Amino acid sequence: MAITGKNFVAGEWRDGDSHFQAVDAQSGKPFGENFASASANDVADACAAAAGAQAEYAGRPLSERAAFLRLAADKIDALGDTLTQRAMKETGLPEARLNGERGRTVGQLRLFADEIEHGGWQGLRIDHADSGRTPPKPDLRMRMVPLGPVAVFGASNFPLAFSVAGGDTASAFAAGCCVVVKGHPAHPGTSELVAGAIAEAVEQAALPAGTFSLLNGTENALGEALVKDPRIAAVGFTGSRGGGLALMRHAADREVPIPVYAEMSSVNPVTLLPSRLSEDPKGLARAYVGSLSMGAGQFCTNPGILLAVESDALDIFLDETRTALAEIGGQTMLTPSIHDAYAEAAERLAMRSGAEQVGIGPEATGTCGRAQVFTVSAEAFLADPGFSEEVFGPSSIVVRCSDLAQLRGVLEQMEGQLTATLHMDEADHDAARDLLPVLETLAGRIIANGWPTGVDVTHAMVHGGPFPATSDGRSTSVGTLAIDRFLRPVSYQDMPEALLPKSLRDEAGSEIRRVDGKFRD
Amino acid sequence: MAITGKNFVAGEWRDGDSHFQAVDAQSGKPFGENFASASANDVADACAAAAGAQAEYAGRPLSERAAFLRLAADKIDALGDTLTQRAMKETGLPEARLNGERGRTVGQLRLFADEIEHGGWQGLRIDHADSGRTPPKPDLRMRMVPLGPVAVFGASNFPLAFSVAGGDTASAFAAGCCVVVKGHPAHPGTSELVAGAIAEAVEQAALPAGTFSLLNGTENALGEALVKDPRIAAVGFTGSRGGGLALMRHAADREVPIPVYAEMSSVNPVTLLPSRLSEDPKGLARAYVGSLSMGAGQFCTNPGILLAVESDALDIFLDETRTALAEIGGQTMLTPSIHDAYAEAAERLAMRSGAEQVGIGPEATGTCGRAQVFTVSAEAFLADPGFSEEVFGPSSIVVRCSDLAQLRGVLEQMEGQLTATLHMDEADHDAARDLLPVLETLAGRIIANGWPTGVDVTHAMVHGGPFPATSDGRSTSVGTLAIDRFLRPVSYQDMPEALLPKSLRDEAGSEIRRVDGKFRD
Repeated sequence: MAITGKNFVAGEWRDGDSHFQAVDAQSGKPFGENFASASANDVADACAAAAGAQAEYAGRPLSERAAFLRLAADKIDALGDTLTQRAMKETGLPEARLNGERGRTVGQLRLFADEIEHGGWQGLRIDHADSGRTPPKPDLRMRMVPLGPVAVFGASNFPLAFSVAGGDTASAFAAGCCVVVKGHPAHPGTSELVAGAIAEAVEQAALPAGTFSLLNGTENALGEALVKDPRIAAVGFTGSRGGGLALMRHAADREVPIPVYAEMSSVNPVTLLPSRLSEDPKGLARAYVGSLSMGAGQFCTNPGILLAVESDALDIFLDETRTALAEIGGQTMLTPSIHDAYAEAAERLAMRSGAEQVGIGPEATGTCGRAQVFTVSAEAFLADPGFSEEVFGPSSIVVRCSDLAQLRGVLEQMEGQLTATLHMDEADHDAARDLLPVLETLAGRIIANGWPTGVDVTHAMVHGGPFPATSDGRSTSVGTLAIDRFLRPVSYQDMPEALLPKSLRDEAGSEIRRVDGKFRD
Repeated sequence: MAITGKNFVAGEWRDGDSHFQAVDAQSGKPFGENFASASANDVADACAAAAGAQAEYAGRPLSERAAFLRLAADKIDALGDTLTQRAMKETGLPEARLNGERGRTVGQLRLFADEIEHGGWQGLRIDHADSGRTPPKPDLRMRMVPLGPVAVFGASNFPLAFSVAGGDTASAFAAGCCVVVKGHPAHPGTSELVAGAIAEAVEQAALPAGTFSLLNGTENALGEALVKDPRIAAVGFTGSRGGGLALMRHAADREVPIPVYAEMSSVNPVTLLPSRLSEDPKGLARAYVGSLSMGAGQFCTNPGILLAVESDALDIFLDETRTALAEIGGQTMLTPSIHDAYAEAAERLAMRSGAEQVGIGPEATGTCGRAQVFTVSAEAFLADPGFSEEVFGPSSIVVRCSDLAQLRGVLEQMEGQLTATLHMDEADHDAARDLLPVLETLAGRIIANGWPTGVDVTHAMVHGGPFPATSDGRSTSVGTLAIDRFLRPVSYQDMPEALLPKSLRDEAGSEIRRVDGKFRD
């Protein structure tokens, strides 16, 4: 499959007037094809086509919608090594990680295909009429319908699982929404390969051409135009806080405001409770350094803050952290600018009042990020909000607390987070019980005795959390509940059976529905 | 129960420095007690108390939460005629309507009490661990938790069912959220009586004092301060488009933006399909006038636009509409300013290019609103967006279309609506089938052969719809699904059984849960 550098707009591959090149993550040098920057016309055409296709795509039987997602998964799988090699060059991520991420991506599409057929997300409810009541009770039947075309922004740090055919795209398609993807300029070739796979699936499933489009470009104006297009009904985004806030503003300023699901920034506090810490300070330190340096720290769930109470065990933990860091080789970061931003942010962190460096990885070259850990007292941490800002890369801060009450106080003043973690043994349960209500308010996922990196794609996963972890803490961007983001309820009152959607007719017995208040499975 | 004019802040009745009086809706004259205008301090204290009470209220067993709602319902019921008489004087609404509205209000509280115990809204999901998978699959368990304290704005047009103990308050309490109500200044005495009932229920249920507060006042600054208070986590509002848009802006401008559920404006298009219209033009005209003039047209579901294809039957319908209007006595409107705004809006409508008056109710005195209907061609309607603006009061516009294609075109260009109605018989089913996808995109509720006024409080009701009908078309403000507005998901990963919420433990067998992807009821 040759890469052409074209955008995929409403069923056709289109060149453009201005172009950009992909950048080799390792060398920092542009290479290969000229990628067309999508024009305002391309945005308008893609959105118009999506709006035109919306009713037909949403109206297809759920079995066809599921088959389409499975077809897309098969075709992405079939890209095999071509896809991995291209993504490696563009992102600097290692081969095993990218093969794993491809598996995650196609697994996600297939999980959503199963979820489409499960159908519980349709929220079917039937309340039968009661003509004897005063006033007479009408017949009411409810189902969820898709919001309309969704704009999805590819993320730099998951070139497959949160990009063109990533979680946002899969959940929007599953909800019955057409999708216009704004590809991330850090991996345009990867984006094109995946878009080609979806385009083939659209064609093979005989879906309308507007069901899916891909727009590439390096300018913020492209994303702004997409979010402001009146035919776009919702936005999915994973990226920086600045980027997410800008999209939120554009969406709120529209004549018709629309929901933005932006997954933005999180420092994912990890708390080591005293008994557990004293039991295995060295093992915890090794696991901590492994988690914070994994993927060059370029995960939204990176453990950026670790909290513990001052103790001999904490000193041992910090010593072992230093030792472990010294053994961690630098890894190529996603882009030269992400590398530079990381280096600067780590320098700023080192200069903050009260910050001490615990340890750092070996000298690194090129666009590699050096893992490093700082420590700070709880007082100094609380005095400077700068410590709470996400650093995108392999760094973390250990906050030393005088006691559990102070530790709780630090957690209470934190901003919203994707995750919050407790390491504990049974002797720590009372302390954990005291902290849990704080963590439930703070984060979308609470982890016991693990590390926040690693987000399982399943039914009970929440990858979300209060602002500014996300723009909208009422939802998740990973797992099957993500489908709910792109739905709205519609109720049918006294509608003749022949005109009701099939799923709401009395005869449709196999659906999961709530009838007169009671579930029937 | 004597009315004191005080605000209810965090368990105490508080007077203030500045005051206002209630206005007799019929005479337009102030009367009775001096009501304290809540100060900035009152707002801060109410919000601080709500935040302080939040964890305790949310942590109470669901049976206690349900008992509290039932207690509040009983105490409102017990206010009996005192409440009705006060509301009559303040709102001008007739006795039967207010007694009915009280029944609806307490019925709503009791329905939400049942819903709390049903528990499906908790969205419980369990995915068991699989240590054999690569990578090992963690144990994940999800539930919905309350967003936090909710600010509820009382509505002028439902002094009971959408005011202090109305739908927003009931659904927020049901979700486990503490509530701070900003009472509507058009019925401060009614608000105080109901607040007193809730205050007694809070005390009797031994809930923390911050569970509920009522703040009265006439200035917009009060509502602004409430929405901007950092402890408020969500907003429920029913009122004007201008008011709702202002609250949306305040919420979006906060350091931590919060969701606003504003139910704002809707013209609720009713379509008379040709065969049904020709069958009974006179009966439809009578029902139309009845619906548009009910409650002096002061319903968000008032049929403000009626669409039909030109025909002899339509002429008969219009003639009968004229006759019926002449028999409709004027009804007192909620406030003198609502009356004046209605009279002005109706005058502006009459002046629009292409508008013709079909008929008008008899000369009315004081603050009574005269029912009136205009007609306009589809071309003129499409040429002037002013025709699509909601007029709050007993007026409506009949849009005459040349054929069904033009009628469909008019519906396609409409803004989001709460409801869309089709009158049809079997010969109209093909036309209805063609229009349904348009209506599903347009509105939250689609009604067959009825009128939009009348909103049943039940499970399958949607009282919501795309912007600007509401600020957030993903939800409903009436019916049990309203509870979902005030919830967010939290996931627990590998949490020891002893620390899990009871509803998520393996032993908790009676809950409605989705376990490893399958529902167990």
